[in-house]
Amino acid sequence: MKADIINPFLSSVSNVLSTMAMLQVTPGKPSIKNSNVSQGDVSGIIGMTTETINGSMAITFPANVVFEIVNRMLGETVTEVNDTVTDLVGELTNMIVGGAKAQLEEAGYDIGMATPVVVTGKDHEIVHKADGQNILMPFNSDSGEFYVEVCFDG
Amino acid sequence: MKADIINPFLSSVSNVLSTMAMLQVTPGKPSIKNSNVSQGDVSGIIGMTTETINGSMAITFPANVVFEIVNRMLGETVTEVNDTVTDLVGELTNMIVGGAKAQLEEAGYDIGMATPVVVTGKDHEIVHKADGQNILMPFNSDSGEFYVEVCFDG
Repeated sequence: MKADIINPFLSSVSNVLSTMAMLQVTPGKPSIKNSNVSQGDVSGIIGMTTETINGSMAITFPANVVFEIVNRMLGETVTEVNDTVTDLVGELTNMIVGGAKAQLEEAGYDIGMATPVVVTGKDHEIVHKADGQNILMPFNSDSGEFYVEVCFDG
Repeated sequence: MKADIINPFLSSVSNVLSTMAMLQVTPGKPSIKNSNVSQGDVSGIIGMTTETINGSMAITFPANVVFEIVNRMLGETVTEVNDTVTDLVGELTNMIVGGAKAQLEEAGYDIGMATPVVVTGKDHEIVHKADGQNILMPFNSDSGEFYVEVCFDG
């Protein structure tokens, strides 16, 4: 997995959350995921296709973190995972991949974006099944920790 | 959502499970999903892109149903959701969309397939966030019920 594929996702996550939710996030050290550390309560998942390789991205939030992001973005207080929450996570997922796509195109990757899927359920886990390594990117913020995972073939 | 997009998924699910798992499945009546009826324990999710519309498919199994499918396909007895289970659900997801893709190409749709993502976690739920209707397809089998959902833009 090349840094020129990972870095656009790292910066897009920061850009989207700082712009849309006024939330400053601090990326932790990306690592190759090989254990079940990224359980969460709400995840946005999106598939990506290119001419040569395909992959997927997931962003996984604990409930309290996504509730805080809803509050920052919409001014609404939510205490359960409802349509407002899943709509917002779907939009964030789209915006993050859209931002990364713009940067990846400059690097010569033409990314086709599928539509987002949002998963809800206490402590669910995401397992990417591309052939390549699954890169786990932890993020810290004033609202708490969350995770982004990116996996591409090859 | 046109029948010429839905039908290839219906027949591909039946083809893949009867061929790979010797499991005869009976499709129920497809419907527009608007309630939380498809909770499951293991789901395979895949994104799809075309020249004109994008979408996603998910297949959601209760644990006991996927354990039975593992036993039929691999001869292994599993009692927990482990790597064997998630690998197999990822493969089934790939095969089902691959089978549908072949039929869709004959109908003029050129589908780009992202890589599968598998979600585990008791009673999680999948929410598709394409702009179009979310079509829920229930299936019955000797191993129990499971669900396939397909959602495309437009």
